[in-house]
Amino acid sequence: MTSSKLDIVAIGDALVDVIATTDDAFIEAQGLPKGAMQLLTTERADELYAAMGPAREISGGSAANSMASAAALGLDVAFVGQISDDQLGDIFAHDMLSLGVRFETPPLTAPPPTGRCLILVTPDGQRTMNTCPGASHQLRPEALDEKLIASASVLMLEGYLWGPELPRQTLVRAIKIARQAGPKVAFTLSESVCLPGRREALNEMIGSGGVDLLFLNDNEALQLTGEQELAAALATLSAKVETLVVTRGAKGALGYENGIAVEIPAAPVEQVVDTTGAGDLFAAGFLAGRCRGRDLRCSLEIGALCAGEIISHFGARPEKDLKKLVQL
Amino acid sequence: MTSSKLDIVAIGDALVDVIATTDDAFIEAQGLPKGAMQLLTTERADELYAAMGPAREISGGSAANSMASAAALGLDVAFVGQISDDQLGDIFAHDMLSLGVRFETPPLTAPPPTGRCLILVTPDGQRTMNTCPGASHQLRPEALDEKLIASASVLMLEGYLWGPELPRQTLVRAIKIARQAGPKVAFTLSESVCLPGRREALNEMIGSGGVDLLFLNDNEALQLTGEQELAAALATLSAKVETLVVTRGAKGALGYENGIAVEIPAAPVEQVVDTTGAGDLFAAGFLAGRCRGRDLRCSLEIGALCAGEIISHFGARPEKDLKKLVQL
Repeated sequence: MTSSKLDIVAIGDALVDVIATTDDAFIEAQGLPKGAMQLLTTERADELYAAMGPAREISGGSAANSMASAAALGLDVAFVGQISDDQLGDIFAHDMLSLGVRFETPPLTAPPPTGRCLILVTPDGQRTMNTCPGASHQLRPEALDEKLIASASVLMLEGYLWGPELPRQTLVRAIKIARQAGPKVAFTLSESVCLPGRREALNEMIGSGGVDLLFLNDNEALQLTGEQELAAALATLSAKVETLVVTRGAKGALGYENGIAVEIPAAPVEQVVDTTGAGDLFAAGFLAGRCRGRDLRCSLEIGALCAGEIISHFGARPEKDLKKLVQL
Repeated sequence: MTSSKLDIVAIGDALVDVIATTDDAFIEAQGLPKGAMQLLTTERADELYAAMGPAREISGGSAANSMASAAALGLDVAFVGQISDDQLGDIFAHDMLSLGVRFETPPLTAPPPTGRCLILVTPDGQRTMNTCPGASHQLRPEALDEKLIASASVLMLEGYLWGPELPRQTLVRAIKIARQAGPKVAFTLSESVCLPGRREALNEMIGSGGVDLLFLNDNEALQLTGEQELAAALATLSAKVETLVVTRGAKGALGYENGIAVEIPAAPVEQVVDTTGAGDLFAAGFLAGRCRGRDLRCSLEIGALCAGEIISHFGARPEKDLKKLVQL
């Protein structure tokens, strides 16, 4: 707990990524949704883990990746997410704290264990994510520290937590705190949020002005709005939020704010190794730009630079010195 | 347990490597022996972990790295090492089994936890290893499966286990089994074995014909023999073992066998990223060559190729397809 001013406080999954390379045949044989994310039961996760190849473990979690990267960019940030009191939880906490991210959510002392995401990377650099959320989806509204949220300029919410009932309540409470206390609310969409039964509540939250800044990709924009055409979907959404950021992979990104639309290309990358975390790093770079007073275009460009760094190696935590890369 | 013929069974530390990049200033400030390995108590390991930067976790352990790589080269291999029944133990076991390495040592069900090696990699690619051995040094002589050892062509022993009393007894018992049952005994040296109190017993074991194949580097040869000149040290050692392999980093490697000496250059490498595992991969490649009937020079060259692969990325487990690289 602290009373000093924070740039961003983010709420999201606390996961350790378990990353293995594979081929398309394995993805198909296992019936996995290539390029997407699916939730696994513990049993199915154990089965898939036994079938997949040798792996490396790198801390992950979408909003957690964004905060690790924002801290590496020099921002003052905090993360709220649920780990358990176990070895993977220790790894997750270490990796946050060692970057200077404030992370004070008390670990669970009973099962489930800290969550894992089994990530299979195919030779085309695409990642297929298989999440066993464990403790991560046990994040309770009572775990929120009102003063911490009130002290931030931006509250960032990870869409993956919008799906299950318990962590969704936690996000809803966080938005209520932010609306009273001042931070802008940023929300990163995920495909899982666009499923029926989740989409409606999110549309209602966005429609009622609960979100200031929305991050999504083309596909999520179509699914969230139910539109057939991207232009119509973006027109609908940009009318409902102050700032809309659309990441489009190799096609770059779009930004909408106060009636202004900006388009930027993707940053050049020598070789795409693993696209895990591209959206998370884009969000980190964009928010870092905004927190440091940059305009829409410049912030989009910073986002693209950061996304370019992360897809050139395995894992969703930066390896290069982001500060040097971006020079905010 | 199996009665089919194995190429190699190896006994060594079962560790998960925790790998972070750092700079020379951090190594110096922490008083770490740059480029070497030191054993840490749990307390000191926790302190160092808290001080070091964000990390990635990749299964490690010297002989375990060799077996993972030998399996990737297509050999039938087994590994004997002590993990605990915890998340890091699961990771270690998964990474072995998923490569087809037989690994049947029952995990400990009480503390200590599975061992870790905190590896700090400096910009020059050197690694400084800080091992918290945990369960790994609790490997008991009773854990050995005589039939498994008897079924192998080569028994490979990791020098790190020669230091502490309990696992040293385990290695001594393994040599006894091998001497009755037939496999050649390969021993990989480590600096820690050359310390007074350990060196004498090892020299005695080597002097009494307990070791057929010795892997070491220049420095270890000098320390083990107490000689001032490398040539004298190698003359002494090559008279005591059937095969002597000396790895020399960027200077390549030397091999001695039946009065024949062979020298080979290092394999060309674009950029040295992390030298962790260079010796382990050299040993794997060399043994793979011998197990497939290659001569001394060719086996050394296979060793150098494998070492070149491992130092071009982080971690001591191969990322490229070793089978394609080597084409045994």
